[in-house]
Amino acid sequence: VRILLTGAGGFVGRQTLNALVQTGHDIVVASSQPAFDGRVCDWIVGNLMAAGEPERIAKAARADRILHLAWTSTGGSFWGDPQNLDWVAATLCLVRATIRHGASRVAVAGTCHEYAWPQSGKCVENVTPLAAHTLYDGSKDATRRILQIYADREGVVFAWARLFYLFGHNEHKNKLVASIARALVAGQPARCSSGRVVRDYMDVRDAGAALASLATSETSGAINVASGNGTLVAEIARSLGKISGRPELIELGTVPDRPFEPQMIVADTRRLNNEVGFHPRYDLDSGLRDALEHWRVKLRA
Amino acid sequence: VRILLTGAGGFVGRQTLNALVQTGHDIVVASSQPAFDGRVCDWIVGNLMAAGEPERIAKAARADRILHLAWTSTGGSFWGDPQNLDWVAATLCLVRATIRHGASRVAVAGTCHEYAWPQSGKCVENVTPLAAHTLYDGSKDATRRILQIYADREGVVFAWARLFYLFGHNEHKNKLVASIARALVAGQPARCSSGRVVRDYMDVRDAGAALASLATSETSGAINVASGNGTLVAEIARSLGKISGRPELIELGTVPDRPFEPQMIVADTRRLNNEVGFHPRYDLDSGLRDALEHWRVKLRA
Repeated sequence: VRILLTGAGGFVGRQTLNALVQTGHDIVVASSQPAFDGRVCDWIVGNLMAAGEPERIAKAARADRILHLAWTSTGGSFWGDPQNLDWVAATLCLVRATIRHGASRVAVAGTCHEYAWPQSGKCVENVTPLAAHTLYDGSKDATRRILQIYADREGVVFAWARLFYLFGHNEHKNKLVASIARALVAGQPARCSSGRVVRDYMDVRDAGAALASLATSETSGAINVASGNGTLVAEIARSLGKISGRPELIELGTVPDRPFEPQMIVADTRRLNNEVGFHPRYDLDSGLRDALEHWRVKLRA
Repeated sequence: VRILLTGAGGFVGRQTLNALVQTGHDIVVASSQPAFDGRVCDWIVGNLMAAGEPERIAKAARADRILHLAWTSTGGSFWGDPQNLDWVAATLCLVRATIRHGASRVAVAGTCHEYAWPQSGKCVENVTPLAAHTLYDGSKDATRRILQIYADREGVVFAWARLFYLFGHNEHKNKLVASIARALVAGQPARCSSGRVVRDYMDVRDAGAALASLATSETSGAINVASGNGTLVAEIARSLGKISGRPELIELGTVPDRPFEPQMIVADTRRLNNEVGFHPRYDLDSGLRDALEHWRVKLRA
């Protein structure tokens, strides 16, 4: 089976590529970046946003399956970025071209933010109602709706991975775990909100492995990619402080809480665990240890 | 106010253009076809499906408002046409470019098929649930979802016209009224289904005028464009027979009914009537008379 991967240069994409090449399948990457060092698969350099490129890439890839992760993700500003509209267009174009060139399975990355936040309980695929909060998740959700109908008509198996909260290697430095870990490694105070909300955090290496499993599986429809465990954000901050040996640097409540933050965003992962057959390798504690170590090495370099 | 119109060469678009030029506003048409005879407005020839064209057209148009009607509509086959995906992309691109070039109001054509068919009662905007039945209406609905969020963010007023059943001048010859009228004019039997379903039929000249009113109004959100009156399809067929003086040519029940046809598709038109302030000019009987006359002239020519 030959699998086309996009977004391989991104936070989750790098880990997904690592996991995919280990499956033994024939992997082809389409990326705006040149092949990374130690390339172990076919590589097409191209810009999905340019006219004619999705078609050219799909043709050159000759893929049986596609795992499409590429999307705008300019740190923080992507929620309202008008480029979301261009990514809808590029995604529809790429998926259509890939199917035209023979692919029979399509998997695309969505987001937990497609869900209307439940008052309590976990987000369950096909049960929890959906609601667009931003241009980003509205665009993702609309893309899913179109591709689901299109794939059904074409007799193509379609999977939609709803990614929850991730942390770990190469995380954007302003994100929760990276920002705290970097402060701790630098011996500086880590200023945090009260952390009284519950989130589902997964090590990005597990997320990459889960996406690789999804791409090589036969599972279809929406699938939460997450740990399935809810943790207080304050607890994550305190764990990092404790692991680093500098718990006193964690300053909870010194940054104002954001208004309108949902109390709980946690995935039901029965589809991922039972249908895709994926189980995370890292628990939260070992993931946080590795993240701290990652930043220790990185900031020293 | 300068208004950009797309789809002016289509069934509804022609009537919309007629109505728009009568408003006294400054109208600019973007069309794949050259300017019609008797052109009374600015005209940009271009192909919205070609790379770079939406941007070029938007720039050349310098419009304060856009009324976007263009979409794939290859008679009968557009329901599942993969080109629907290209039209989503082109629409997002064109709307984005038009806003970037200064437009502050966007109106786009949707369809009554976005509604989940109610068991009884009329389709009410923002009340009747939505459900995609085909790639066409799924693509339309997804486009609306994205554009609504995008327009809100950009401070642009966004209206979405849900067109119901139309008939009249230049209707596709396989459609209900055109096919019966053509048979009657030719003196041939008009073979029909049982006609036991209720539909909301509007004269296309009224639909064009309604869209022109919507484009020049300040009304936002989803708006049904329809007569608001339900009529048995059999009744429409019988009316045409009666008007033509050949009622015996109407052969109800000689064509099998389609399976899974919803019993009733009728619009609640309070938004169109009260908020847009539009009221149809033609009742069903006078519209059918004119349609018959239209085909009489056309088939003689």
